Amino acid sequence: MLAPTHNVKKVAEHRQRILSILLNNDELVDGILGRASDEHTLSKSELLNQTAEITSLLEDMHAADLADLLEALPLDERLALWRLVGVNKRGHTLMEVAEPVWDSLIEEMSDKDLLKAIKTLDVDEQAYLAQYLPRNLMGRLLTSLEPDRRAQVREMMHYGKETVGWMMDFELVTVRPDVTLGAVHRFLRLRKTIPEATDKLFVTDRKNGLKGELPLTTVLLHEPNILVKDVMDSDPTTFQPEDKAEDAASAFERYDLISAPVVDAKGKLMGRLTIEEIIDSVNEESDSNLRRLGGLSPEEDVFAPVSKAVKTRWTWLAINLCTAFIASRVIGLFEHTISQLVALATLMPIVAGIGGNTGNQTITMIVRALALHRIESGNISHLMFRELGVALINGIVWGGIMGVVTYLLYDDWAMGGVMTLAMILNLLVAALMGVVIPMTMVKLGRDPAVGSSVMITALTDTGGFFIFLGLATIFLL
Amino acid sequence: MLAPTHNVKKVAEHRQRILSILLNNDELVDGILGRASDEHTLSKSELLNQTAEITSLLEDMHAADLADLLEALPLDERLALWRLVGVNKRGHTLMEVAEPVWDSLIEEMSDKDLLKAIKTLDVDEQAYLAQYLPRNLMGRLLTSLEPDRRAQVREMMHYGKETVGWMMDFELVTVRPDVTLGAVHRFLRLRKTIPEATDKLFVTDRKNGLKGELPLTTVLLHEPNILVKDVMDSDPTTFQPEDKAEDAASAFERYDLISAPVVDAKGKLMGRLTIEEIIDSVNEESDSNLRRLGGLSPEEDVFAPVSKAVKTRWTWLAINLCTAFIASRVIGLFEHTISQLVALATLMPIVAGIGGNTGNQTITMIVRALALHRIESGNISHLMFRELGVALINGIVWGGIMGVVTYLLYDDWAMGGVMTLAMILNLLVAALMGVVIPMTMVKLGRDPAVGSSVMITALTDTGGFFIFLGLATIFLL
Repeated sequence: MLAPTHNVKKVAEHRQRILSILLNNDELVDGILGRASDEHTLSKSELLNQTAEITSLLEDMHAADLADLLEALPLDERLALWRLVGVNKRGHTLMEVAEPVWDSLIEEMSDKDLLKAIKTLDVDEQAYLAQYLPRNLMGRLLTSLEPDRRAQVREMMHYGKETVGWMMDFELVTVRPDVTLGAVHRFLRLRKTIPEATDKLFVTDRKNGLKGELPLTTVLLHEPNILVKDVMDSDPTTFQPEDKAEDAASAFERYDLISAPVVDAKGKLMGRLTIEEIIDSVNEESDSNLRRLGGLSPEEDVFAPVSKAVKTRWTWLAINLCTAFIASRVIGLFEHTISQLVALATLMPIVAGIGGNTGNQTITMIVRALALHRIESGNISHLMFRELGVALINGIVWGGIMGVVTYLLYDDWAMGGVMTLAMILNLLVAALMGVVIPMTMVKLGRDPAVGSSVMITALTDTGGFFIFLGLATIFLL
Repeated sequence: MLAPTHNVKKVAEHRQRILSILLNNDELVDGILGRASDEHTLSKSELLNQTAEITSLLEDMHAADLADLLEALPLDERLALWRLVGVNKRGHTLMEVAEPVWDSLIEEMSDKDLLKAIKTLDVDEQAYLAQYLPRNLMGRLLTSLEPDRRAQVREMMHYGKETVGWMMDFELVTVRPDVTLGAVHRFLRLRKTIPEATDKLFVTDRKNGLKGELPLTTVLLHEPNILVKDVMDSDPTTFQPEDKAEDAASAFERYDLISAPVVDAKGKLMGRLTIEEIIDSVNEESDSNLRRLGGLSPEEDVFAPVSKAVKTRWTWLAINLCTAFIASRVIGLFEHTISQLVALATLMPIVAGIGGNTGNQTITMIVRALALHRIESGNISHLMFRELGVALINGIVWGGIMGVVTYLLYDDWAMGGVMTLAMILNLLVAALMGVVIPMTMVKLGRDPAVGSSVMITALTDTGGFFIFLGLATIFLL
């Protein structure tokens, strides 16, 4: 088999060709899926030709490109294409597709096919996929593995997601400190292959204790009679399996690492982390952050059926409805005021809206600073005063402008004054809560990014209505 | 000089120690900055001791860790610490700090110091920093460089930000196709050093045309008498300087690349991309996405002075105020209706709020799918119907519930019906616009992530008020 193409232009051509065959061709899709079709415009040989063309294009595509293509297809077309993917490629493709898409693909596979696909993968990949398998299948996968592989998969699954233990792999090459570089080179030549993303060998003693790292470039650049221990890096950056994935990612970024050893508490070499696993985990993380900010569940796929989308989105809608209802009840308290001065109903959304905007700006900044570890106990009060200062200035400027506009619209100075004062106060509430909410969530051990935005909007809406209508009741009636 | 520590625990200790010395110690900070201090509790030798301790801790810290520390400090403390950073470390630290912090640091440096710091860097780093220099300083930097370096910096600056040309570096090792691996190995040993992140050599002909790639592992694993051309990868993934940075990042991720050649249109080798540059660019990108979603400018730093924060945030506040004002004017159209039925003022924010929530969910999903290239011309209508379906179901369910609640509150079936209908219609508008807005922005060649959220909220607010109050005017008066 030829290696799949990495040529960006060729990949794009293959992709376009497959898309143009599959989309708008229900008959072919139905045919591949073995369903009766409504259309009968193509002859059997045409159908076979098209199928053969797709199959040969697929063979030339990398699993990652194939995964992308599957993700860009609506459900039926996706399943039809999946049927045409060879067994030897299915495992790697499953590794690359996004979670929700993976669900739709494995539903179509028999248990036997699925196990066969997974068996072509490395240990760390098997452990990764095992988490998504139904319980009975996971058991079958584990029993079908050789004993020491099974132990490795079990070990990885034992560490939680988003830990180093979960991301590490076991594909490493070790050498002893007291051999020469020439001996290392001969050893590598005898070995004939080397795991992917190997930029360094790990130097261990007889008991597997990590003594240092030996970059491949060191082997290449030094004379063959030099001893490993004289040129190795004896204080490398190491990780423990319990370390958080995001801390490892940050260390990889700051020290420009390609791979790094994972050791247990006693300093024994357990496995390694590579930049590839780090990048995958960072991408998953930032993708899920983006979704959470938008109130989407990580399980939703852009082509998920309507019923699934309704289910994954209902929580945020329900929460939003509750907070909107509370805000509405606050307005309800002032129905008497509004009935006497209808203009208030017109103006109140402005006060609430501007508060929400300011609150969200503050929260975004704080959540970001927390993620980057820029907030220390010594600087919180400094931050708080800064945000209050910004809010005060913005409140005076924009509140002042809206006060004048209100006067121009309703020819009522008192109402303009109430507008200005309400905007200043609501911006101060927004800034205060924008700092307090995420800091409190961190104190409670929760992720400050989840739900902060909903809470601040709820508070600034309710607060904005209450402040504005309350001031109006006091000063205008 | 000892190499700085990469040991995560030691870095954290150094950081904590420096923070605890600097924060809450105004006298020391004032002393370093050469200002008269209000406090006089420390003796001169105590001040000198503390300064010496910080300096020695700084020497053991990596530039990236130092940058993090600077970012976590309020302005005065930051500048005081910066004065204690050695000249040989300043260039690399400037490369690592975030843009807004960099501004505050270079303001403190004389032009001469700044040029000295920048001269310790690589060409690609100099080109990166040059963009932030005031014009006259950039000229001085360029003239102070050797002619071929200057040409390289100029060349990089000529490609726009977010292109491959902008990210590439020139630190590469080339070999000829018709030499043996043994000769390559001897050549490397004579060379003595090799650029960082080198996982492969580039094979070129006499005219610098790229013929293939030779991974270092290939040199190590094969017999020395084999020719380069027999084991090189002759169809590698290459990039052109005009390619988009994000496409390169996606290729690095999917093909697990560590480095890749950059060639011109005729296939001549120009430079290379490494995973480090890719990671930096991805991080910058995702950071700025997060900020833009929250309506923050990329120039704001968590410790920027109040005046700067007011300036960077005012655009979004102004836009928000305008849209809120328009929504308010729509309500104004119905003041007569509201004056007859004050309950409408109480209920209307619910219709608007739920529409904003749904619209933002849809937009997040579409922007994400666009970024991942999952949307093709063949599947837009499919997507649109799906979102409308989800909105319809949610509208019937939640609108129905709110209709009943409205009836229970106001004992008015007609008002409950208007509530239900308005919620269904506004959710449909939200879903429709949630698809149309980002797709239109893409058609117009703009980034769909910027401002989409503000636009959808403006539309669902205005639309929600208009639909609800309009229906009420028709059916309830």
